[in-house]
Formats: sequence, C-alpha cells, structure tokens
Amino acid sequence: MSQSPSLSQLHDSNPFLRRHLGPDAAEQQAMLQALGLSSRSELIEQTVPPGIRLNRPLELPPALDEQAALAKLRGYAEQNQVWTSLIGMGYHATLTPTVILRNVLENPGWYTAYTPYQPEIAQGRLEALLNYQQMVIDLTGLDLANASLLDEATAAAEAMALARRMAKSRSNAFFVDEHCHPQTLSVLQTRAEGFGFELIVDGLDNLDKHRVFGALLQYPNTHGGVHDLRPAIEQLHAQQALACVAADLLSLVLLTPPGEQGADVVLGSTQRFGVPMGYGGPHAAYFACRDDFKRAMPGRIIGVSKDARGNLALRMALQTREQHIRREKANSNICTAQVLLANIAGFYAVYHGPEGLRRIAQRVHRLTVILAAGLQAKGLKRLNEHFFDTLTLDVGGSQTAIIQSAEAAQINLRILGRGHLGVSLDETCDEATVLRLFGIFLGADHGLSVAELDAQAQHSGIPDALQRQSAFLTHPVFNLHHSETEMLRYLKQLENKDLALNQSMIPLGSCTMKLNASSEMIPITWPAFANLHPFAPLTQAQGYTAMIDELERWLCAITGFDAICMQPNSGAQGEYAGLLAISKYHRSRQQGQRDICLIPASAHGTNPASAQMAGMQVVIVECDVAGNVDLVDLKAKAQAAGERLACLMATYPSTHGVYEEGISEICEVIHSHGGQVYMDGANLNAQVGLARPADIGADVSHMNLHKTFCIPHGGGGPGMGPIGVRAHLAPFVASHPVVPVPGPDPQNTAVSAAPWGSASILPISWMYIAMMGPQLADASEVAILSANYLAQQLGGAFPVLYRGRNGRVAHECILDLRPLKTLTAITEEDVAKRLMDYGFHAPTMSFPVPGTLMVEPTESESKAELDRFVEAMLKIRAEIAEVQNGNWPAEDNPLKRAPHTLADVLGVWERPYSIEQGVAPSHHARLHKYWPAVNRVDNVYGDRNLFCACVPVEDYR
Amino acid sequence: MSQSPSLSQLHDSNPFLRRHLGPDAAEQQAMLQALGLSSRSELIEQTVPPGIRLNRPLELPPALDEQAALAKLRGYAEQNQVWTSLIGMGYHATLTPTVILRNVLENPGWYTAYTPYQPEIAQGRLEALLNYQQMVIDLTGLDLANASLLDEATAAAEAMALARRMAKSRSNAFFVDEHCHPQTLSVLQTRAEGFGFELIVDGLDNLDKHRVFGALLQYPNTHGGVHDLRPAIEQLHAQQALACVAADLLSLVLLTPPGEQGADVVLGSTQRFGVPMGYGGPHAAYFACRDDFKRAMPGRIIGVSKDARGNLALRMALQTREQHIRREKANSNICTAQVLLANIAGFYAVYHGPEGLRRIAQRVHRLTVILAAGLQAKGLKRLNEHFFDTLTLDVGGSQTAIIQSAEAAQINLRILGRGHLGVSLDETCDEATVLRLFGIFLGADHGLSVAELDAQAQHSGIPDALQRQSAFLTHPVFNLHHSETEMLRYLKQLENKDLALNQSMIPLGSCTMKLNASSEMIPITWPAFANLHPFAPLTQAQGYTAMIDELERWLCAITGFDAICMQPNSGAQGEYAGLLAISKYHRSRQQGQRDICLIPASAHGTNPASAQMAGMQVVIVECDVAGNVDLVDLKAKAQAAGERLACLMATYPSTHGVYEEGISEICEVIHSHGGQVYMDGANLNAQVGLARPADIGADVSHMNLHKTFCIPHGGGGPGMGPIGVRAHLAPFVASHPVVPVPGPDPQNTAVSAAPWGSASILPISWMYIAMMGPQLADASEVAILSANYLAQQLGGAFPVLYRGRNGRVAHECILDLRPLKTLTAITEEDVAKRLMDYGFHAPTMSFPVPGTLMVEPTESESKAELDRFVEAMLKIRAEIAEVQNGNWPAEDNPLKRAPHTLADVLGVWERPYSIEQGVAPSHHARLHKYWPAVNRVDNVYGDRNLFCACVPVEDYR
Repeated sequence: MSQSPSLSQLHDSNPFLRRHLGPDAAEQQAMLQALGLSSRSELIEQTVPPGIRLNRPLELPPALDEQAALAKLRGYAEQNQVWTSLIGMGYHATLTPTVILRNVLENPGWYTAYTPYQPEIAQGRLEALLNYQQMVIDLTGLDLANASLLDEATAAAEAMALARRMAKSRSNAFFVDEHCHPQTLSVLQTRAEGFGFELIVDGLDNLDKHRVFGALLQYPNTHGGVHDLRPAIEQLHAQQALACVAADLLSLVLLTPPGEQGADVVLGSTQRFGVPMGYGGPHAAYFACRDDFKRAMPGRIIGVSKDARGNLALRMALQTREQHIRREKANSNICTAQVLLANIAGFYAVYHGPEGLRRIAQRVHRLTVILAAGLQAKGLKRLNEHFFDTLTLDVGGSQTAIIQSAEAAQINLRILGRGHLGVSLDETCDEATVLRLFGIFLGADHGLSVAELDAQAQHSGIPDALQRQSAFLTHPVFNLHHSETEMLRYLKQLENKDLALNQSMIPLGSCTMKLNASSEMIPITWPAFANLHPFAPLTQAQGYTAMIDELERWLCAITGFDAICMQPNSGAQGEYAGLLAISKYHRSRQQGQRDICLIPASAHGTNPASAQMAGMQVVIVECDVAGNVDLVDLKAKAQAAGERLACLMATYPSTHGVYEEGISEICEVIHSHGGQVYMDGANLNAQVGLARPADIGADVSHMNLHKTFCIPHGGGGPGMGPIGVRAHLAPFVASHPVVPVPGPDPQNTAVSAAPWGSASILPISWMYIAMMGPQLADASEVAILSANYLAQQLGGAFPVLYRGRNGRVAHECILDLRPLKTLTAITEEDVAKRLMDYGFHAPTMSFPVPGTLMVEPTESESKAELDRFVEAMLKIRAEIAEVQNGNWPAEDNPLKRAPHTLADVLGVWERPYSIEQGVAPSHHARLHKYWPAVNRVDNVYGDRNLFCACVPVEDYR
Repeated sequence: MSQSPSLSQLHDSNPFLRRHLGPDAAEQQAMLQALGLSSRSELIEQTVPPGIRLNRPLELPPALDEQAALAKLRGYAEQNQVWTSLIGMGYHATLTPTVILRNVLENPGWYTAYTPYQPEIAQGRLEALLNYQQMVIDLTGLDLANASLLDEATAAAEAMALARRMAKSRSNAFFVDEHCHPQTLSVLQTRAEGFGFELIVDGLDNLDKHRVFGALLQYPNTHGGVHDLRPAIEQLHAQQALACVAADLLSLVLLTPPGEQGADVVLGSTQRFGVPMGYGGPHAAYFACRDDFKRAMPGRIIGVSKDARGNLALRMALQTREQHIRREKANSNICTAQVLLANIAGFYAVYHGPEGLRRIAQRVHRLTVILAAGLQAKGLKRLNEHFFDTLTLDVGGSQTAIIQSAEAAQINLRILGRGHLGVSLDETCDEATVLRLFGIFLGADHGLSVAELDAQAQHSGIPDALQRQSAFLTHPVFNLHHSETEMLRYLKQLENKDLALNQSMIPLGSCTMKLNASSEMIPITWPAFANLHPFAPLTQAQGYTAMIDELERWLCAITGFDAICMQPNSGAQGEYAGLLAISKYHRSRQQGQRDICLIPASAHGTNPASAQMAGMQVVIVECDVAGNVDLVDLKAKAQAAGERLACLMATYPSTHGVYEEGISEICEVIHSHGGQVYMDGANLNAQVGLARPADIGADVSHMNLHKTFCIPHGGGGPGMGPIGVRAHLAPFVASHPVVPVPGPDPQNTAVSAAPWGSASILPISWMYIAMMGPQLADASEVAILSANYLAQQLGGAFPVLYRGRNGRVAHECILDLRPLKTLTAITEEDVAKRLMDYGFHAPTMSFPVPGTLMVEPTESESKAELDRFVEAMLKIRAEIAEVQNGNWPAEDNPLKRAPHTLADVLGVWERPYSIEQGVAPSHHARLHKYWPAVNRVDNVYGDRNLFCACVPVEDYR
C-alpha cells in the first residue's frame, strides 16, 4: 500500500497568505534572481538598516484561515445586541436599499476604487458625487456643496475655521448654541483650543450678548426643537459674523432650508440616507456654503469641466486649495473624505427621488406627531414645542422606571439629566414602534390607539413659517431610476466607467492599493456590526468592545506602542490627534511653550496642516541630495527651536521611498532637545514585522488602516487613522463626551464625532491581521521585493530618483520624468494619461517631487501584473523616443493625445499614428480593453468656469 | 399650523411593486395612450378571454415590504439548525472561496445572464464553462465533458439512455450496482419505467450473470468502498455493453480515474467543489464520455470555433442535437443546465489549482485514514476495506447509543440498517472533527490521539493499483489565478465580456428575463439556508419546511391546483414529472393503455421529448393560420386516439404569444375523451392574477420559478420546475427514497436527486410572492401592456405574426423577418447580431417559427428601455432599407458584419459605412458602449472541427 502523507505534511500554516500575496514562491524567486539575489532575507538585509530591525516574529496569534477567522469574528458579532435605538443625536436607523447594498457597498467595482485624482478613469464615481453635491445643495438651499467630510462634528469644526477665514468680524470668539449635539461641541472645543479661538457655549437667546466671528446653530436642535433661524442669523450678519447651521438632512425635506433663511454654511450627517449606523461610522458629512466661499471650502469639490474634445467631463475642482499643495499655508488638513458613503447617500436620493424622500420624511414626522399627541393627551410634559422627529420629555421621577421599561422592550432612549428623556423616530419605525413607546412611557394600560390619534391629530409639529415650500431634487437623475432594474443599470453604467483595483493594479506611491480581500469585507455588512447606535450602552456592544480591544493589542504588538486611540477617522485626523496629545503632554509638564514642529521638506502635505491646526508653528527641515533628512539642518533647527521644540513629524520609510539610515539618530536629536517624535504612518506597511515605530524612537504614530491594514479606499474614503502612543502620552489622547473611552483622561475632548471613529470598518483590519498573523512580515518583504523589482526593470528607462543603502528602494520608488520632459516636452502627466490607454491607473504624480511618478506596487500584485506594467512603461518610453527623434510631432502623438476614447475612434482619424497605436497599444489592451469615458480633462477651464452641480440634460447632447 | 398628512395617506400598500415594475404610472399611461386605451383594465378586457378571467384578487397575504419580507424569511432561516453533516451520499460540506461567493454567486453580472445562445456576448461564461469541462475531462480521464446536467441522479439516468442509444448489445436491461446511492437508483427506476427498460439491481459480483446494454457503477460506492472498476468494465465491454460510472469528483484527485480504467461514461456531482449543499441544490452534475459518443451526449457542450475574423471564439457546440431542434425524435429533454453552479465549481478548480485540490483531497483522505485507524485500533468493525473519505462501520447493538451521542454533538451520521453507520469526511473537517467522532463512537475515554495516529498510520486507504498517477489541470488557466487579486481580476475580465440583465433588457420570448431583485437574492447565501444537507433530519430543517409549505400554498392559490410537487429542478423535469403522474393515474384506473400525448405544432421542444421519456407516443396537432390550435384537427386526433388518449400538452398563452380563445374548449375535448390536460407553464407569467390553469381546465402544470417567479437564469441555470396538480393526481407525483415527501404515495420513485429539488433557491420565489402579494396581477398586466406597446411601435416595421382578439398580443410577440429576408437576404440572425452593436441581447431567434424573432419585454423594463429597443429596431429597419435599395452591398453592410468588435476598429476600415455607423449607431451606444468580445461566430466550423476543452495558450496569440 502506498504511504499517505501525514497531516503535518498537509498542514498549510497560512493559506490566506498565499491568497494575499501576488507573487508565489517561484515568482518571488524569479524576481529575486532579476535583482541578483537568492533570498528575500538577503534583500531585507541589504535594504532595512540593521539597527532598527525587529529580529523576532511579531507577537501575534498564529494565522487563522479565512473560515476560522470569519467564525471567530462572527462570535464577536453575536455578542453585540441590536436593540431599537431611538437615541438620535445625529445617528438614526435607516434602510439601505438592497440594490445599493449589494451593488455598491458590497461591490469591489466601487469599494476598491481610488480617489478620483485621474478624472478620465473616474467619471462614474465623479457623477455619483456630483449627484450627492446636488442633493446637498437642494436640501440645504445653499449654492455649493463639497463631496463629503468625515463626520458632522469635524464638519462643524471646519465651518468654524472657514468662518474665521471669511468673516469680516475681528472677533476671536465662536458661538455655539448650547443645544448642539454634545460630540459636536466637544470636537469644537478641541479644535478651538488648537486655533486659539474662544468658544462661547450659551443659549441662543444670549447670542446678542457676545461679539463673535461666527456661530453654530443646530436645526432641529439636539433636543428636537425646531426654531426659526432667521433672528439669530440676522444678529450674526449684523456683526459681520458667519452663521453656520448643523442640520438634519431628512428634516430639510419638510423644513425651510437654512440656506433660504440666510445661513452661510450648512453641514451635517448624511448617515440616515441609507448608510448603516455602524456603531459610529463611517458616514459622509455634508458641507454646503455660499458661492462666495467656494475657494475657502474645505475638502474636495467635484466640478464640471470639458475634455480635450470639448465634451462635458467631471473632475475634482479647485484642487489647488488642497492641503497637499498649500502645505504650510493650510489650516485644514482634510484629505480622506467619505466617498463610498457619500455615494450611497446620493444613490439613496436617486433611488427614492423627491417624492420618495418626502413620503419617508412625512411618515417619520407623522409618527412623531402621533407619539406627541398621545403622550400629551396623557399629561406628559414635552419640552420642545415644535419638532420634526425628536421629542424631549420631562418625566420627572418616573425616569428610572421608564428606562427599565424601555430596556425590557429592547429600546434605547436618550437619557438626559433632570428627569428628561429623548426619543427620535426614523424610517424603520412604524405604528408598532409608537405603540411600544406608549407602553413604555405610560404603562401597558395606556388605552391609546394609533389609528384614533392619527385621525384626531391635525397639526404638523413644524410651525407654518418653517414649512418647506421650495422644490428639490428636480434634476432628472433623481427622477428616472426608481425601478430596481433602472437603478441597477445606472449603478452598473457608472461602475463601468471607472478603473478600480478589480481590473488592474493601481500603483500609487504612498497610497498602498493592496488586496481588499472578500473575507475581510464580508463582516462589515453583518447586521450585528452595521446596526448599532454609537451611543448604545456598552453592554449592548460587547462584541465591538472585544474586537476593538483585540485589534488594539495587535496594533500595539505590531508598532511597539503601549496604547491605541481608535478615534481618528482618517490619517490626517490621526496626525492631528497625535500632535494634540504631544501638546497636552508638554503642557502637563509645564512646558506649554513648546510649539515648534519640525517637518522635513519631503513630508505629506497633511503634516504641516495638522501641525498648524494643533497650534504649532511649522519649521521645515531640508533634505539632502540623496533625499534624506539633512541631519545638519535638523540639528541646527532643533537647536534653534530649543525650549520651544515640540516635536518632529517624520515619515518612515521616507516619502522618497527610502529607509533613511539616520532615523534613530534623528529621533535621538529630537528627544535630546526635549521634543517628541511623531511618526507619520503612511508608510507603516514597509515596517510591519521588520521594524517598529516605537522601537525606532517614535512617541506617537498613526496607522492608516485603509493603507497598511486593508480597508479599501472606497473611491476616496472611508479611512481610519488610529494612533499608537507610548505610555507617557496615553493619558492625553482623545476621549468622548457621551461614551468616555477607556484609557485617557475622561475629561479630554474628542477629535471625531464617534468614540471609536468609524468602528464598523475595523473588522476589515481585524480580519487581515487575524488571517496573516506573524506572517504580516512576509507582506512587507514582498512589497519591498516588488518595488525593487520595478526599480530594477524600469530604472534604465526612467531614472529612480532616490535609493537607499546598496542601491535599494523601500516599498516604493520615484521615477524621474524631468530629464525626458526637458528633451521632449512630454510630461509626467502625459505618461500618467497614456497609462490609461494601456489599462492602468497612473502612479502618484508629482508627489513628493514635481515632475516625477511615485510607484508602489504592494505585495498583492503578481509578477505577471508587474511585468505588464513594466511592459507598458517601456513601451511608453519607446513612444517618447519617437517624439524625441522627431517621428511624431511634439503635440500630436499618443502621449499628448492620451487618453484615447471611443469618440476619437468614431471621429475622423488624421493622426501620425494608427488607431491601434492609440487605443490598444498592448496585447492586454487588445484582449481586455478598458475605455476611459472622456478625453483629457481641462482643469483650468473647469476652475475658471466653476460649476459643481448636476448638468442640465440638454448639455449632454 | 399646517396640517400633517395622515398615516393612511402616507401608507404605500406595496412599495416593492414600484421597484419591480419598470414603467411607473405616468409611463404606463403614455403606453396605454399609444395603444389608444385609457386604462390597463381596458387592455386586459380586450386581451384575455372573458371566460377564463379570474375576477377576484389572488388569495395571498398582503404584500410585505422588502425589509419585512426579509425579516420574516430570516425567522424561517433561524428555525433551521446547521449541524455537521457527515452523511455523504453525494453531498458534502464545502468552503466556497469568498472571492467567488461575492463576485460570482452574489453578483448580478453573473447571475442575471442568459443561456449563451448568442456567443458573441457570452464569451466570459463560455470560457468559464470551458474551464469546467476541462476540469471534468482531466479528473475523469475521459475525452469529452458537457457543460453540466441537473444532478447526479438524473445524470445517471441520462447515461442509461445514452448507453441504450450507443451500445451494440441488444439487451433491454440496465444493471445498477446495488451500492449506488439510493436516490440515484430511485431516479433510474423512474426513468427505466418510462423507457421500458428492465432495471437489474444486484451486487457487482453477479454482473456476469446478466445480459445488459449497460451498467452503472459507483466509485467510491455509496458505502465508501473503493474497488477496481476494470473487471466489471471488461465484462461489460465483452457483451458490447457500456460502462457508466458515477464518481465522486474530489476522490478522482487521488484515485485512478474511471476513464483510465475504460469507462465509457463518467458522471457525478460537482457540489463539493465550492457549491453549498443548499438542502439539495442547485448543484451542477458533470457528465463525461468517450469521443465516439459526442453526438449522443445529452445537454449542452461548449466548443471552440472561430469568428468572422478567424479569431478564436467559443460557443455552444453541436446545437442541432438539442431537443428543441430534434423535437419528436428526442429522448432527452435536457434544456436548463446548472451554469451558475458549474461556473462556481470550475472557478473553485481555477482558484485552488492542481496542487490546492491535491492538498484538499489528501487532507480529507488523511483524516479518514486516521479515523479508520483509531476506530480499528479500538476494535470497531469497518465494512469497506478501502476508502477515500467514507467509512461504513458495523456497530451492532451500539447503534442507538452512538446516534444519540452524535446528536448531542450536533453531528449527523448516515444511519443504515443492521447496526451499520456511515461517516463521510469533507474539506471542512479537521483534527477536532476526528476527535469528536472518536468520542461519539468510542466514548469520552477513548484515549486516542490524532497526532499519534497520524504518526503511526502509514498507509493510504486507497489500494496501490488505484492510486492516481496521471497529471491533471495542467492548463495555464488552472495555474495562474491563485492569489485573490488575480482571481478577482480574472472573474472581472470574464464578467466584462458578457451582456447580462444588469446592462440592458434581454427581450427573450418565453424566457421571461425580468427583475431578479436584490432582496430576493440575499437570503440564498445565508448559512442557515446554504449549509443544510438534503438528508439531514427534518427536525433540523423546520425553517425550510415552513418556507416550502407556505410557498406551496401560495402557488396553489395562484394556479388553482390542489397540491404542489417541489422536486423537479427544471421546467423540462416538471413536464416529465407531470406526465409520469398522468400515466400513473391512468394505470391506477386500469387504463394503462392510454399512451398517446397530443402536442400542438407550436410547442416547446421539451414537450415531445418529455412525453417520449414518459413512455408516451407523441401525436402532433396542427395550428391554424392564426397560430391557434386547429380545433378540428385536435378533435379528430383525440377521436382517433380514443381509449389510447393519455393527455394533451398545451402552453397558455400559446408559444405564439396569444391568448387562444378556444383553450377551455380544448380542455373539454381532451377530458371528454378520457385524457388529462398538461399545461406547459412556460407562459404562466401572463396568467398570474388574471386566470388560473386549474380553472381553465388543466389537471397538471409546471411552474418555471426561474421565469415567472424571479429565480435568475444564472447564464443557463439553475431553474426550478415544480408542478401543480389537481387532487386526483396528487397521489401520483414523485416521492423520495431517503426522505419521503409528504403527500404522494411514499413508494413513488423520485424524478430528481433531492426531495425538494433545488431547495436553496426557493427563497427567491418566496420573497417575490411575499413582496408582491395579490399585486402579482399588476406584474402580469404590465407585462401584457409592454408587449402590446412593443407590438404597436414595431409592427409597422416588422409584421407581428400572430395576434389574438382585438389585435392584441399576450406578454410577447413574434416579429416576422421572412418578408425582408426574401427581399434583401438579411436574416433574423443578422438582426440579432446587429442588436449587439446597439447594446442589446437579441430576442428569441427562430422559435417557435423559423425566420422570426420572438420578443418578451416583461413588466420590469421601463418605458425608456422599451423605447431604446424600439429605436434600435427601427434604425435596423432603416439599415435593411439601405441594403434593399442598393446603397449597401448585400454582403458588406452593418447587418452582415455584425457584431462589430475592437478588432474591426483596429484593422483597416474599408467598408461602405463609417466606424460610427458600425460600432456606435445610437446615442446610447456612444455613451455606454458595450463591446462584443468576438465577431460573428462560425458555428459550422466549430462543429466540423469539434474541440471542447481549454485552448492551448499559443493558439490565442
């Protein structure tokens, strides 16, 4: 009889690893061979400075296979209890239309897309975002909306900053209505402190007692009250201050929009437009303002422009406002937005249309009217006379009994002091909900009938003067796609226009577009993760608590830090939160004068912006010719800062794609001058398992869970940027006013609206680490191998700008296009656009060095895909040579004409190259042609003729 | 204060209806207006014969909205208990790779596709099916495989029929190894009875005692035994009989394949290749045979051919074999296959590759070896010496105690008579499973260690002579896509080649490509529906039982029948099952001589095939010039049949798309001659809520749940064809040998492998009916409205061949292309292919009338989409006119050249029409161009040069 291999021989220690990594063992060997190496460890030895190497496996549990990890996580999910949460406070249960759930939120065609910096291959999500902006414009009654911010609280903080920039008032004070949501107030406190604003929290009646540059009003307010905004707005305008209004989007269907009442800025959450509460996020915050403020608007704005053929084309407008360009002049660090969630909210409006939304809003309101009438009939005292969906009730001494009764019915109410309770209804509520509430508030024998109350209660809870009169969502896009078939096809049409990670590699330097595995994504739409209110009692969220605790422990093991703050919901938020902790730490030691932040010239643009938001003064440290931090300059500037040195912000490996040898010394220099080291975690994926930020000398660092830990980019968000801190900083990280976070001082204010940021996407990173275990190091090694392989294959055609020891790059490399530009006038942009014809998304353009392309292949790309990219780049180099040697005119060649579209093919073809050379220059393109939807987009035209709403249909013809 | 609209004003009685129907009220009104009508009821009065109208609402519960329906169904799902089922018998737990789950099974791009009759727009799923065929060829060691059959048992029945067609033996007997699966034996008994074969069930040792035309062997057999097939195969070949082998696909990774042992046919299930058990289905059965039998092979075969440019192109081969062409000569009624499931199984092989499959098979086997060694060491008697994954144990008097112990551990074993128990391991099992089994069989203090047994047990359970030596899955497609990123992109590349319902209407007459709503699809992948073994005790399947019972009640209410048989897993299976019931009924009344089945000339090709399989003689009834059944001929033939008249098979509305006025009289004629009426349910969607088959006079009818009740077509399956019967036929429908079905005589044999057919897709139809309620009638009415609107808009350009009363068509209409063909040589095929350039799937071609196109718009297409189709057809008519008037040559025009591809554009363009006229002849095509992957496929070349496996890579270059 034959032998049968033993179980141990058949045991695959990490089956997911094989799925996550692009190149298999043989392909890795071939890549190593091309580099003249025989093993990955040889490469790592040549590449990573020995002094910082972590020479032991990560202390993580052994990898689980996909099914085992899913089973374990399901166990956590089952520890959560999904009660009916009528807490309100900006979070409401909602029904995600299943056609959107399945075809957007669960579809890699949408969730693996990148931020639409390359508009020609992003017209689908740009159109979706334009719909979203139009929806916000229509509902708020303002002129202009951006394409989403992180959450309502940070949007309010951005409004405050914009008010300071734009108001003519010279005051340094900002007024906040005391009836704003507490988490919004907390974030405003944090932000005001950084900016040095005085924050005045008071009743609206006292507004006229204060001199301010702006104010935030809540509409309806956090206790449900609906008040005319006009008196306050007039008072503000009279003192040349700006009126900012945080408004509930669904209520604006029925209420006179703040824009029509004169508000300058309106902001809020779009969560209840089909985006699950997800224990706090991610959701898209909206932000709308008057046209005058368009160039001061934070975040990204989608605008209409035209392409090289004069056809309509969308793209991000006014990009020069972005922090990565403005750098040390910025005072907003907004980078990641919430594109995926904004799209879902926009599609919710497209699918329901104005009539559908009106029916939803009226139904929610009517149920509230009936609830109010019943409670009133039984003598319960309501504190807000007018309302949309929220009632605040004075139940006096019955509070405890009512709460117990609500708990028995598995209903969460908002618990307020002084015997007050709040209840907010939503689109999932019905007659039965109201009846249950009668039972809870009045006892089982309340004797009320919803039908009778419905027949009797005549009046709206909204005063006549605030009844919305104006039409909204009149554009055809909101009136055509109301059958599921039409909606499905509309979603598919948009998806088909875009190039996402499910079609080709997206070799974006620093953005780490790696695999977002299906098993990582599946849990986020489980109801037990998706449907929890962020302020639900912790007893109902034990699964979340357990999962987050474990993820924090794992992240500590990976980074060497002692504690994690999970609140920042973007990388830039993480930077800001980390710098605030540093500031507080200094102040706690009576060194509050430390306010200088050193930042290398190569840093991400968010760094100086975050520093300024944290009240620090930015001093730039130069880089040497090799791209490294100039140690001499660093020492000099640290010395010069002296007692004012707060910290250094450094990215490691550097944004130049190099493991700087001097990193330990750099940290020592800063520490020796009493400063702290903030390590930007953008490139953490090149450290995992090989080195640890805390071991290197960092005191705090953020981790882009959407880069290193596999949260998909979603077309431009969501992200998550938790920070790791050493123990001495742990007391100073963010807490939360509603749900104090374990660890830091509970008095600390918040940086984000929700206690654990975008909690519902944490399962993605949890799954990734659970399935990789200590073999996370393999991912880092293969990422480095792939980058060096590309540098090797492409370096001859395009010089690699910076290299580290032994001529090796880290996990990415910068290809220098400037010499060719000098010779041929072919630019990095031409190459980027030309790559689209080959079916590729361009690498990062002109960051960190203008005139270059930064390429990061990640560990998830197979050798075949890398070779396909190399082939495309070498063919492009040959095309440039044709221009160089005069065979093609400087302005009429496949590079300048790129990308090519169907319209090119259908028109008269009178070019010095063939159609095939134009549209299908590679074998792969001929087999699997991806067609950009538009020709090269004219950015200048769009910015000069700014139009950021849906285009009249006739313009498309 | 303003009034607030009351709840009742805001109550939408059926919000899903708005999503399901394409045209809204205003669009319906516009369509009615085009027809000169003012209301839908006016149209229905003009269209449906008054004598058959159901003039009351369907007796169904009120419609639930999507979330309420999902919540109710989740309640049922929670009543199911998912235990570990080690029952085997052809069904095994499996791990669906999540990248395949999410991107194929849960992706409308795959599940809404139609059968690939139009290969130019189906190259993606054709390639997937070719992979599947190659996998089957490699694993079975045979020459040729088809693209799936319905289940293992019916595949065995097809093998028996093929053996009778191809064997030189003159015997009328077929031998079945007594160790075949009982459900296979039962289906063979059913089928043999219809064909009049003698079925000999005996031990293999007695094979030489019988004269037979073929035999079925099971490998490994149902009790796990692994025996050399060669002696039996030699005996069969010696008597010129065929050897058919039902084999477990995973075992063939390790076992010498039956093809290498001389088997003529190998068949089985591919379920355990990643397809959930789903309480019985759907799964794909595979079927492989020697090259000599290729023209006798049942089912569809994908073959390689070339396109008009000489490039490789795939398509269904040897289509002339199909029953819809062979009609009354057919003896297989196979139509629907299991394409979606076959694709999943094929992708499972692509993703795991040969090494991955080997590891899985070896691991399952090794665990079985360890289990066997442990049980043997403790003195338990095993009945099968050799094994792959299944052990049969003689536990004598301990059986009851062991079963109880297994129940306590929530493990299902196979319970056999005489104190025997079976246990089958699968890829979800691990060391812990084996330990649990030791505890169950031996008691808690068994003292065995898996590790020690692993170290000690040297030998394979597979005899040396049967160890597989040959390589398999050597084609690159099985060796390139092992990282998730590569697999994801491969799936996307294939999806992008295909045109499915998520991109445009698919106006297929009779195939009813309507909305497959997301909310209908979501439940099928819930684990509580997906992971039940079909032979799990009913106590664990109470959710299924409740859901199926309710669905049966609803279908009775819709059709007027008294009982439903849920077993047939395709429409053709339903026909066959219904005719069998009729035969049994006649025999029960001592009228066994009734064997003549009248079938109108316009019938679907499956009808005569099913009749012949049921042992009936087919007599064709002519149609009159109006397309209706010729009543005079019917009466004459019924008269002539006399005492031999068994039944009539009639489709209603007719396949000509007309409500025949004489249907009631037709039924009366049949009944008056003692016959039964079988109503083909293909067009039931035009009756629902308007008329009921049983009321009209039908005794039995099948319901295509994949047409009328929203199960998606999956690219050519799955389907479900349950039958409704009047009470007198109810005792005669199928039961099941393992799980007797409530209702019929439990002695009745089975028509399908599983008791309730493809149970796991029944939630789709349940959801549809739950969400539509009595408004199902609205769907029928709008379908009729849409068809009449198209007939009205297109009738001027293309004559509508048949119309009913008042010139109205039913839910579909036939456009006659023959006059234009006579004038211009432009054929219906040219028009069909040309529609692809406009981004449409063609209507049904040349059925039921050669030279025509049959168009069925369904209720789910918006007026905008209908108008887009009208526009395309009218433009095509104008193009034909250009040929007609000589502006374009007869052979060089956009119609004859259609479809146009990228290759056309890239080549030299020397045609009498422009590129734009060729590839983007409409506004929609310019905006949302869909590119067929190949030019027109050459069917003749492919059939003459039959090649049905993966193409060597160099051939693609």
